[in-house]
This record gives sequence, structure tokens and C-alpha cells, in this order.
Amino acid sequence: MSRPEVAVPVAIGPATPPPALLEKAVVEGGATVADLADARALIWAGAPGEFPMELPDSIEWVQLHAAGVEDWFTAGIFARHPNVRFTSAAGAFAANVAEHALMLLLAGVRYLPEHLRAGSWRQRDFYPHVSTLRGKTVTIVGAGGIGRALIPMLVPLGAHVIAVNRTGRPVTGPGIPETIETIAADQLGKVWAHTDHVIVAAPATPATRHLIGADELSRLKPTSWVINIARGSLIDTDALVAALASGAIGGAGLDVTDPEPLPDGHPLWVLPNAIVTPHDSNPPQLRLAAFADHVSENVTRFVQGRDLIAPIDLDRGY
Amino acid sequence: MSRPEVAVPVAIGPATPPPALLEKAVVEGGATVADLADARALIWAGAPGEFPMELPDSIEWVQLHAAGVEDWFTAGIFARHPNVRFTSAAGAFAANVAEHALMLLLAGVRYLPEHLRAGSWRQRDFYPHVSTLRGKTVTIVGAGGIGRALIPMLVPLGAHVIAVNRTGRPVTGPGIPETIETIAADQLGKVWAHTDHVIVAAPATPATRHLIGADELSRLKPTSWVINIARGSLIDTDALVAALASGAIGGAGLDVTDPEPLPDGHPLWVLPNAIVTPHDSNPPQLRLAAFADHVSENVTRFVQGRDLIAPIDLDRGY
Repeated sequence: MSRPEVAVPVAIGPATPPPALLEKAVVEGGATVADLADARALIWAGAPGEFPMELPDSIEWVQLHAAGVEDWFTAGIFARHPNVRFTSAAGAFAANVAEHALMLLLAGVRYLPEHLRAGSWRQRDFYPHVSTLRGKTVTIVGAGGIGRALIPMLVPLGAHVIAVNRTGRPVTGPGIPETIETIAADQLGKVWAHTDHVIVAAPATPATRHLIGADELSRLKPTSWVINIARGSLIDTDALVAALASGAIGGAGLDVTDPEPLPDGHPLWVLPNAIVTPHDSNPPQLRLAAFADHVSENVTRFVQGRDLIAPIDLDRGY
Repeated sequence: MSRPEVAVPVAIGPATPPPALLEKAVVEGGATVADLADARALIWAGAPGEFPMELPDSIEWVQLHAAGVEDWFTAGIFARHPNVRFTSAAGAFAANVAEHALMLLLAGVRYLPEHLRAGSWRQRDFYPHVSTLRGKTVTIVGAGGIGRALIPMLVPLGAHVIAVNRTGRPVTGPGIPETIETIAADQLGKVWAHTDHVIVAAPATPATRHLIGADELSRLKPTSWVINIARGSLIDTDALVAALASGAIGGAGLDVTDPEPLPDGHPLWVLPNAIVTPHDSNPPQLRLAAFADHVSENVTRFVQGRDLIAPIDLDRGY
């Protein structure tokens, strides 16, 4: 006897009415939008402080909007609802930031800043400066969500990718070929000689502060671009400014800076081979769209009784 | 009895010594560089006028440097060497131009030109203007080598691709998913309503002149970017300037213009939402590198006795 086909009721909070994108995501996932009292799951786009003290017994799963959920542990939310599965939005925003990194790298490699200043054809002046990622080695320092999302974007461009992670265990994930080279962070010194371009995508910790400093920059090429979409502190800004000014490297594309915000008049604003975007690779409207994709995928899995993406592990704390 | 392992001798001309990249390509393909008199194949990086009148009987295959070989037919080269297989470089340079198109599109969608002019952090001013290709529909008009090379670059970014070709027969090729939508050129009018961005990659013919004109531009969105890496004549420049100035479309990224070269003082040089690169998406040094990749692949196939890429068909004339 097959189970009667009743759509799974899913609530959305805290905003009323909920964002249309999230309603659409729930429906695309094969569920229906319902009141909390009738729902089996809750999509929560709010902060821990707004979260309901009590949940109906019918709620089996809660999807949170945050990628990092330290605040949720601190607020004791998970302990208060021991019978509910929680999932975070970890990974949901990675593709968007990865796309920004790709844009900065391509714009650099193809000499776009100078083109935009030219205002004149001068084809032969530009020819020698236009390069490609094809056949070039791109080292991605940090193989978390953003780093892993970048790899499938770089591979079709013919770039050779070296991924750097903590352990050196081969990086895997959707769209990541087995041929990707993975290096442990403590072996990073060995990759510079083979590296054409660097993308900094590691978390900011005491160990990664000034990961890219004068020494690392001196080992790159006059055509190398350094892209940072992680945290400003991972690069020694003074050393970077010196390398850009001397032409020791080709350029830098930075969505994050140190200090941040970058003050007016800072050399990075005027160096012709620096591209600065004001930490806007993942603006609010794109965050909602990316979260909606994540919700759609997880609702689909919930409806079909499959494992959910980004389950929060109470023991590991994330 | 296995055949003794003697490396296949391949000659390179006309330059002496040949470019190091081509020597490397021959060796990577599993052959050795040899004099013409001893060779079984010839890699020819020169023009028809320089081509040898006579070839040694040992020559089985000639790889030409040109993608279009009309001049070679006109010069009667193929007729003069009826026992030799010829291959062109068709497709070899496509990936490079496709990469440029992707760069222009990403730079536009992520609002890079305005960022480069800012010189100041102003994060909240920029937020609403930063977009993504994820979930957006990119219509590629023309599914030749460049269009087909672009598709595998766009798919990992989460873009939905509509390919437009003459026949409407589904576009296929390496890295092109079966889910790609293909539309016949005479149905082009129907795609604008679903299109977020347009990439012009069709050949210049009387039929494609001003393919993108005032009418087409009026049916795009205020956020749409129009990219042209084909020929300037495919877009009505005056209509484009008007659409850019009024904000009817988001912007234009042009590696080709009409007129070309674009004269100093032309509105396209000053409009803030126009990016012009001086037909330099495929500069000489990248052409040689791309040709070397093509040579390496074809030498590999020749050595292994497999079908060659881009064989010249004497009946079709290309």
C-alpha cells in the first residue's frame, strides 16, 4: 500500500510574509509553505535572538541562514531542541565568492584595468600584456567551500590547479577532477616556483596571518596575480604594496583588505595593477538567492527522505 | 613480433630554428623533431607563399597554422600534394577568445568598471550593483568554435545557456552538457524575453549585419550585458550607444567594434558602462601557445594512428 501523496508542510520565518524567493524554493523542493503550527520543517532566515523558544512537536528539521553557527551554539538553541535536526547554510555562499575571485583573476590576467583607462585603440601596445589562464598554474590556498567551488570554474579554462589544505589529503567535491594536485599547508614553500597565480581562500587564524608576505611575493613572477577573497590579514599589505609598485608581481585583486575598510588615499587605490572591490563579492541580494538554492536542495532531500546538506554536528561544534 | 620503437620524425617550418613551443609540442606528442627530408609529418607555421613546392615522399601529413584556409585553396597547395593529409588549426584559437568573452561578461556583471573608478570603499553604494551569472540565462549567438568553447566555461558558473545556431540542431562538443538549449537563428526573436546576457559569436555575413539592433536591445533588461568578440558589424553601434546611454541595457563588453579601430573620442570610449578592448583577445603570443597545444594533440594522434583534429575537406573547401 503506497503512502498517500500529501505535500510536506514547511514553515518560513521570521519575516511575514516570507521572501518570495524562499517560498519559491520550498515549492521547488516539492513541499508546501505552511504555518509553523502545522509544519514538519522550518526555514529560518533570522538571528538566534529571534528564534522561537518553543517549537511544535511536529518540527523535525530546521534550516538556518548562517554558514557559521557559533552564535547559535552560544545561545543554546541546539541544546534546547534536542529532537530537531539543524542544518546550516555552510557552502551556500561559496560559489558566489568563487565567481568573484575568478572575475578578479581573469580581469588581471587579461589586463583589463589598463584597458579601461586607455580611451584609445593602441592594439599593439596592449598585445604583449594580454594573457590567459590556459596552461597556467593557479594555486588556491585554502580548500574550504570557496576554494572547492573555484576548482570546477578554473578547470574548463585549461588552468592547472594546485589546492593547498591543512592535511594534504586530495581535495574532492562536485566537479573536482581527480587530477587536481593537493599540497599540505606546511609544504606551501615548495609550490611558489610552479605557481603562476595565487588565490587566497583560507580562514583567518593566527597561523594564516601574513601567509603571503615579502618572501612569498618575491618568489612569484612579474606576471603573477594575487587574489584575496578571504580575509585581509592573510596578506602583508605593506609587502604587497611594495611588490605591486616594483613590478615584482603582475597585480593584485582584493575583495578584502587590511586595514578594512581601506582608507581613502591608500596606495592600493592608486596603484595601476591593484583591483580593489569593497568586500562586496557576496552582497545581500545574492546571499538570499544563494540561500534559496540551498533551501530548495535541502527541502528536496527532506521530502525524499535523503541526507541533508550541511547538518550541524553538535560534537564538532559546526 | 612487435614493431621496434622508433620515434616518429616530424619537421617544423618555415622558421629556423623553429619556435621552442612548437618543438616542445612535437616532443610532448611523442615524436621527434627532424629535418624535412627525413620527416613523416610537417608542422607549418607559415603562409601559403612560403610553402615548399615539393615535399619528400615520406611526408604523410601537414599541419597548417591557419584556422581558415581559403588562401591555401586559392594557392592550389592541396591539389599539388594529393597524397598528403592536411589539417588546419580550426578551433585552436577559440578557447582563448571564449576566455576573453567570459572575462568581459564577468567584469560587467560584477560592476568592475565602476569599482576601478571609485578610489574609495563605499561598500553600500556598490552592493546593489554586484550580480552573478548563477541562475542567469546567457544567450550565445553563434555556436562555432568560440561559442562551443564558451559553454563549458559558463556551465560551472551556474548559468543557463541558450545556444543559437543556423539549424537549431542541438549543439554538441567536449564539455557541453546535453541539457543545453539550442535555438535556430530564425527563432532568435523568441529568446530575448528569457535572456539575461548576450554573447555575439557569429560569423560576419550579410545576414548577420546588425543582428543586434535597436529592436533587440530594447527587448533586453536594464541589467543585461552584451558581449561582442566576433565582428563589429554584427551590432548596430549607434543603437548600442543609445541603449548604453539611456540605461536600457546594463552594459557592453566589446573586443570588436564598428568602425574598427574605434576612433579616439568615440562615445564608446567614455560611456561608463562600455568596456572596449582593441581586438586583442587573441594576441600573437597566445596564438602560438594555442597552436602548440593543437600541434601536441595532433602529433599524439598521428603517432598513435588515430584520426586527426581539423582535417581539411577538399570537397567542402575548409
